[in-house]
Amino acid sequence: MVLLVQHSVSPISRKVRIMMSEKKMLFVLREEEPWNLSQECYKLNPAGELPIFVYDGNILCGNNAICEFLEETSKDNKLLPPTPKARAEVRRLTEWFDVKFSRDVYRNIVYEKVHKRFASGQAPDSKILKTGYNNLAFHMEYIDWLTERRNYLAGDDFSMADISAAANLSILDYLGDVPWETYKNAKLWYSKIKSRPSFKDILKDNIRGILPARSYADLDF
Amino acid sequence: MVLLVQHSVSPISRKVRIMMSEKKMLFVLREEEPWNLSQECYKLNPAGELPIFVYDGNILCGNNAICEFLEETSKDNKLLPPTPKARAEVRRLTEWFDVKFSRDVYRNIVYEKVHKRFASGQAPDSKILKTGYNNLAFHMEYIDWLTERRNYLAGDDFSMADISAAANLSILDYLGDVPWETYKNAKLWYSKIKSRPSFKDILKDNIRGILPARSYADLDF
Repeated sequence: MVLLVQHSVSPISRKVRIMMSEKKMLFVLREEEPWNLSQECYKLNPAGELPIFVYDGNILCGNNAICEFLEETSKDNKLLPPTPKARAEVRRLTEWFDVKFSRDVYRNIVYEKVHKRFASGQAPDSKILKTGYNNLAFHMEYIDWLTERRNYLAGDDFSMADISAAANLSILDYLGDVPWETYKNAKLWYSKIKSRPSFKDILKDNIRGILPARSYADLDF
Repeated sequence: MVLLVQHSVSPISRKVRIMMSEKKMLFVLREEEPWNLSQECYKLNPAGELPIFVYDGNILCGNNAICEFLEETSKDNKLLPPTPKARAEVRRLTEWFDVKFSRDVYRNIVYEKVHKRFASGQAPDSKILKTGYNNLAFHMEYIDWLTERRNYLAGDDFSMADISAAANLSILDYLGDVPWETYKNAKLWYSKIKSRPSFKDILKDNIRGILPARSYADLDF
């Protein structure tokens, strides 16, 4: 049995949860708030970052460390393709969402709307939100462009890149912030991801004090 | 032959160069300035980020994508250990430096002193620099703590984690900003890395308009 110390509003935590479900692993979750991290968390991970993956007394921390470990240690449901070049494309896009999307969009929208409110009680800054929405449009266009040409983000097959992107988007979708109607290919792609059994658990998540947008858990949105 | 489009002041560019040298690859470098990126760069990498790895008409972008590709496609000089658990520790520390150190230290010191000057002609903000130096002390303590207990950062053997850390530190060292004398174990570790043949090229780098600190290229610093 695996314990994942995580936060429901963290895209990397969601990414690891979806990956573990794809790998048919059993796990329990323990929720921690990044703005109010317990001392125990710092003991488990000196970086003070979530998620933390605990199994058999072993502690793994760090986005790539955990995800590549999950991929290396499970034979079923491969989330990286077989050739180095195809893997590089999956990793490029995974990093695109984990780092670039997160900095351009998540930091400006989710951090403003959720973290700031709970960490300091402050209202979101409308100028920062606007930057976030503008950046989101750029990223949606890119997803739309990719999914017009490919089955999944990085190629023919479902991969870690789809999980990273959908984990990020699912949080924005909870807040009702994704303009799906403007991006038909992206919407079709997301509906495929959303209906995977590994996504079911994510769609039941509740952010304390914030109701999900009406279509958040709706497979036919 | 490989072309690496890179920037001498980017830690990830330095990391890839050191990795390629460890793998005994032949490559040519093309310098680009991140604050003045050419249109061609955006064509090669829509994320607008360096480095970009070009070989045989293939284009690889993204830190993890390039580094894991280099590791997967070369048999010699392995920079990741053989077991998944040991690899997870290398990847945790690699990410620590690529993401956390970069955000805590690089962004506050190097960006202020170098990027800001060349991008906008502005002087560094002393408050931001001070934050960077405080963060650097925390990271140096961690490196010192690790290297007191281990041969190399992630364990007995030289790995990708050492390259990430040294690539970041080498830029700060160029600026004369690393307080080596306070951290004896860290200094001993860095002197081992610095004397590797793969590091030689880095020590010849020149940042336009900024002279290197006196001991930058000195193996006995």
